[in-house]
Amino acid sequence: MSSKYARAGVDVKKRGIEVFKESVQNLLPRAFCVVSRDPGLEGYGLVTHTDSAGSKPVQAYLHWRETGEYGWFTGLAQDVIAMNLDDIICVGAHPINFVDYIALNPTRIDKAELLKNLNLGFKECIRLLEENGVNIIFSGGETADLPDQIRTLDVSGTINGRVDLSRAISGEDVKPGDVIIGLRSGGKTRYEKRENSGIMCNGITLARLCLMHSEYQRLYPEILDAEGGRRYYGRFRFNDYLDDLGMTVGEAILSPTRIFAPVILKVLEHSGSEVTGLIHNTGGGQTKCLRIGMNIHYIKDNLPEADPIFHLIQRESGESWRAMYENYNMGVGFEIIAKAEASDDIISISESFGLEAKVIGRCERSKDGNKLTIKSRFGDFHYSQN
Amino acid sequence: MSSKYARAGVDVKKRGIEVFKESVQNLLPRAFCVVSRDPGLEGYGLVTHTDSAGSKPVQAYLHWRETGEYGWFTGLAQDVIAMNLDDIICVGAHPINFVDYIALNPTRIDKAELLKNLNLGFKECIRLLEENGVNIIFSGGETADLPDQIRTLDVSGTINGRVDLSRAISGEDVKPGDVIIGLRSGGKTRYEKRENSGIMCNGITLARLCLMHSEYQRLYPEILDAEGGRRYYGRFRFNDYLDDLGMTVGEAILSPTRIFAPVILKVLEHSGSEVTGLIHNTGGGQTKCLRIGMNIHYIKDNLPEADPIFHLIQRESGESWRAMYENYNMGVGFEIIAKAEASDDIISISESFGLEAKVIGRCERSKDGNKLTIKSRFGDFHYSQN
Repeated sequence: MSSKYARAGVDVKKRGIEVFKESVQNLLPRAFCVVSRDPGLEGYGLVTHTDSAGSKPVQAYLHWRETGEYGWFTGLAQDVIAMNLDDIICVGAHPINFVDYIALNPTRIDKAELLKNLNLGFKECIRLLEENGVNIIFSGGETADLPDQIRTLDVSGTINGRVDLSRAISGEDVKPGDVIIGLRSGGKTRYEKRENSGIMCNGITLARLCLMHSEYQRLYPEILDAEGGRRYYGRFRFNDYLDDLGMTVGEAILSPTRIFAPVILKVLEHSGSEVTGLIHNTGGGQTKCLRIGMNIHYIKDNLPEADPIFHLIQRESGESWRAMYENYNMGVGFEIIAKAEASDDIISISESFGLEAKVIGRCERSKDGNKLTIKSRFGDFHYSQN
Repeated sequence: MSSKYARAGVDVKKRGIEVFKESVQNLLPRAFCVVSRDPGLEGYGLVTHTDSAGSKPVQAYLHWRETGEYGWFTGLAQDVIAMNLDDIICVGAHPINFVDYIALNPTRIDKAELLKNLNLGFKECIRLLEENGVNIIFSGGETADLPDQIRTLDVSGTINGRVDLSRAISGEDVKPGDVIIGLRSGGKTRYEKRENSGIMCNGITLARLCLMHSEYQRLYPEILDAEGGRRYYGRFRFNDYLDDLGMTVGEAILSPTRIFAPVILKVLEHSGSEVTGLIHNTGGGQTKCLRIGMNIHYIKDNLPEADPIFHLIQRESGESWRAMYENYNMGVGFEIIAKAEASDDIISISESFGLEAKVIGRCERSKDGNKLTIKSRFGDFHYSQN
């Protein structure tokens, strides 16, 4: 049976993209990201990575339409940097530079105001990273007026990173006996200003449709493609405050994606030789670990309680828990696979940033490809590669 | 008075993007593209550039809906590579690698079929470039399911290039007395298989709206944002063959953007020290030269006759000729600014590729910023920087 999320129009399994694999020239085919040869720099790989803020811009657009405040778009800058930066960190790369790509419908949005607020977001985010030991050069980007393609806006970007090939995290070193350390996506670290719902940037389409009130669809038909009966069926206004969440429903959906890079770069500096895998839990959520390792059975039997936003989405959408773990990070935004003896040190480094971390599981041998077992109070769920 | 193109919803002057300028760290602020410091490679600049195929994907979508053939999407791969590659060539950079970003509406398009055909296009284009001395590593990219943001699809990408800073084309070396050599966007070079209409990737929104029949808008409402009275008002079906064009109207709109890189890299190899500026005539069309040089008055008084597609668009839309030169390349897709004595050699190199080239104008001194005068049989038109 297809998940609620698949029926909402998003395929977390990314069927069809395998055609590209044979064309891609990848030095480390089992690594988390594509690593390219750099013809100008022997011994180093270039990691060029593109990603978007998903459908979070639609939620920001809704808040702007309701309030007239363009400031709601600012956080998308952090989302798109996080989506790119924390992916390349997973191969052990250090960032070089970043460009954005903003495609928009100029008949709907005042471009100058939008760009002013996004620019503010990029500046703030890059400064915050710099203060925490991560340097990224902002190299500009492109703004495209595409009224017939873009209903409202799409915010994406591309990052370049560089990795010493002798120290790259190739995805081949995960071994049975290694532990899985989970870093929290919600709450607030020492380098952040606000409490985070933990939602990050994936699963936003389902979150919007199941939480936001159908009235919005009538008011702003441009926030939906109603093809195939797709619709908003939520009970909430964007500014409904829920005690559970400790914020409004709209703020919970829009919470800017946590950036893990400051913590991970410090972990690699101190315990790099004992780290065997790094996983950014984006599309695919808790099942993202299946992407790396060879014949590894990941067992997660000590996951933290999922943050309230995930419970809310599950309750309102009726999505199965099995699918929830495939759609969402469920409170663990990043995973470090490491030798068991390094776990205390790694957890201490994370906690020194005010970022909650704990051992959430372990790696065992699998006979036939990568497997994942999640043991939770909602049941045991089994997943496998492809 | 606003141009027909502005009223079609596209701002060729890119108002609003100036906010980003102050945030961008650019080694060569007057160059055609942003050039970033590469912390790993002293003496070289990294040129990371993002661009899209504009609204050409909408035209490809229309052809697919009418014929059922996904092959109509294949040429978009060349469009997006051309839009990126030929921009970075303008600072004298050599390409390193490329990633694509395909945002699509999965409720409208079969993703697997689309990606299969785009992948074919990327492979073909990269092989063709390789055969002509230009090497690009394909580093993959991202496919995003965004049904509530993307009506049909958006195809963009990012290229990295590297430039020896001691030989970069900084945009500051254009001098009075230099000549402007124009390279043709239409016709067929020796490294191409098919005749090109010359339209490239800019001005497609107006071209679609003024040429394609309003019946299509009724059949496929997803190809238009009808906000503010925007509409298709053309007389043609996509497969109407026009003797003038030597192809169908749809083929003329979809003609893949010519790639000038093989010719330009050869020109730089042979006459690099005499080249003072390079201009890819994309957004801004014939006025793109205003982007480089300091206090230069560009005078173009020997432009070739614009290809038939431009006459057709002008006639059907009623756009002013003045605005036509701002929207479209008008038959000259790329310009080389060089010392007068180098022009014969440069033209010979271009013609050795079967690419028509000629001196179309010259540079004079301007007292207050860059200026451009176009002298044509439709009148003399004056433009200035901002």
